[in-house]
Amino acid sequence: MKKLINDPANVVREELQGIEQAHPDLVKVFYDPYYIVRADAPKSGKVGLLSGGGSGHEPMHGGFVGMGMLDAACPGEVFTSPTPDQMEAATKAVNGDAGVVHIVKNYTGDVMNFEMAADLCRSEGIEVESVLVDDDVAVQDSLYTAGRRGVGTTVLLEKIAGAAAEEGRALKEVADIAREVNANGRSMGMALTSCTVPAAGKPTFELGEDEMEIGIGIHGEPGRERMKVKSAAEIVEMMTTTIVEDLPFNQGDEVLAFVNGMGGTPLIELYVVFNELSKFLKGRGVTISRNLIGSYITSLEMAGCSITLLKLNDDFKKLWDAPVKTAGLRWGA
Amino acid sequence: MKKLINDPANVVREELQGIEQAHPDLVKVFYDPYYIVRADAPKSGKVGLLSGGGSGHEPMHGGFVGMGMLDAACPGEVFTSPTPDQMEAATKAVNGDAGVVHIVKNYTGDVMNFEMAADLCRSEGIEVESVLVDDDVAVQDSLYTAGRRGVGTTVLLEKIAGAAAEEGRALKEVADIAREVNANGRSMGMALTSCTVPAAGKPTFELGEDEMEIGIGIHGEPGRERMKVKSAAEIVEMMTTTIVEDLPFNQGDEVLAFVNGMGGTPLIELYVVFNELSKFLKGRGVTISRNLIGSYITSLEMAGCSITLLKLNDDFKKLWDAPVKTAGLRWGA
Repeated sequence: MKKLINDPANVVREELQGIEQAHPDLVKVFYDPYYIVRADAPKSGKVGLLSGGGSGHEPMHGGFVGMGMLDAACPGEVFTSPTPDQMEAATKAVNGDAGVVHIVKNYTGDVMNFEMAADLCRSEGIEVESVLVDDDVAVQDSLYTAGRRGVGTTVLLEKIAGAAAEEGRALKEVADIAREVNANGRSMGMALTSCTVPAAGKPTFELGEDEMEIGIGIHGEPGRERMKVKSAAEIVEMMTTTIVEDLPFNQGDEVLAFVNGMGGTPLIELYVVFNELSKFLKGRGVTISRNLIGSYITSLEMAGCSITLLKLNDDFKKLWDAPVKTAGLRWGA
Repeated sequence: MKKLINDPANVVREELQGIEQAHPDLVKVFYDPYYIVRADAPKSGKVGLLSGGGSGHEPMHGGFVGMGMLDAACPGEVFTSPTPDQMEAATKAVNGDAGVVHIVKNYTGDVMNFEMAADLCRSEGIEVESVLVDDDVAVQDSLYTAGRRGVGTTVLLEKIAGAAAEEGRALKEVADIAREVNANGRSMGMALTSCTVPAAGKPTFELGEDEMEIGIGIHGEPGRERMKVKSAAEIVEMMTTTIVEDLPFNQGDEVLAFVNGMGGTPLIELYVVFNELSKFLKGRGVTISRNLIGSYITSLEMAGCSITLLKLNDDFKKLWDAPVKTAGLRWGA
């Protein structure tokens, strides 16, 4: 295992210390238990947005805390759910008496712990709405998941719901728009290489020198099929065909196209993939009117990519375009 | 070789097509020869800023074309200098009759071709100032280079000089501030893995399973020393000691600290490195008042990082903070 770390047991703590040192203008970091909140939290009268999950997916979620996106993030250890006490403490820290939305990716541990945390918070008089993200079309049920996994749409949802909360919408409205984003988003991923959890010290799975895996999960969970490496055009066609036929995305639809790197894939390749995606969608009569290209929901140093399409409406577009100021996503501020 | 590409011979062309599809609001892309210019170029009365170099370092330089940074970028093939005709065409395309600054990283091919291009442009009546970047403290002379190599400071220089041009400073002033940034910036890199040039199909160099190379160049050129992998703290200490003693950076100095990923290193590790850098500089009495953390000047999928320190003054800080709107770096716009 070759990584830029010290003790594998301290990776998450030291990453948080790095974030605290780098971004005091954006966030406050707490260590007992771990959570990150906006530097100006709590914002009185504003709906709070909280997400969390295992670490190893950076910049998600800690890098999305700030104006116009999340109010708080709870990082677990690498690929491990955060605990209810983290979520409870973070919920309290961002409670501006307008309620808090929990954004939960569909993994069994995350779902269970967020449910416990929501119950604890409600018992203390905080209104909590939970929103589940389950956008991965690759597999139904998986390691760690009943139903579909929550992947790339999470990033888009946090941006759009974050903008809705920022402009003062009420708890139920913010939760509803988050659910609407999830309902209109579909994703699929693929891996060229595995990744190594620091505490494990060896690759999560093995892939041959000429193999790739289509439909991989963000923790290296098995996908749909392992096969010989194909061209970017063929990979995009395989993944995107499944995505567009699932929702479905139809001729005349307008989408946000998100090409995400898994952590070990350089940007030059993501633009080659975006070019193929652009051609594929043109062929189907689907218009890309917004896009996001980069490594935003990663799997440590895994090489590979995921594609997410979100069907757009005018409200989504307005909220996507609204200013955001976080370490991981920033414009207009 | 496992990459998300089609034909290795078409990687740069298809990447440019991806950029063109993704960012028509920011840039225009030309193919014969290759160059990228701001969507609103030429800006009459504004000094033009042009850079270029081999591809494989994305988002540099094409991702830095836009308001407040570069007016044009000339991408060569992967790790190969662009040609004088690209530079000449791009210079003409961004010439707003206030002169054009060429930002040249110190590699023999780049220097020679930019010199030829500058002569061609001058002979056609365009004022050109050339600025050389040679900030890499790792080695004196190297594969492809006489003197020091140009690395991470290039990114900071393009932002700061770009802001100076954007606010209407004259040719000589913009070139001088660019030279001043180079004079105050120092960098060093390291690699945990090699990278594979698509056209070569095999790794540029070999590193053992437990080895790293300190002082690596951004094309995989040999560094200072190959050794067993060390902790993030030890790596930061080795690299940063060399950097601070070179300029030198002294107690009481204020710096911009840039922790750069080489392309295959995930963000979680860069924050661990930044945390160590922060501790190291505190120990030396050097204050980090600005920072940049992410993969901005990469070497394809190489795992590793580089550290750049730039000694700040009030003008640099003001120009760094000014709005920028590019695919690779964006704030305030």
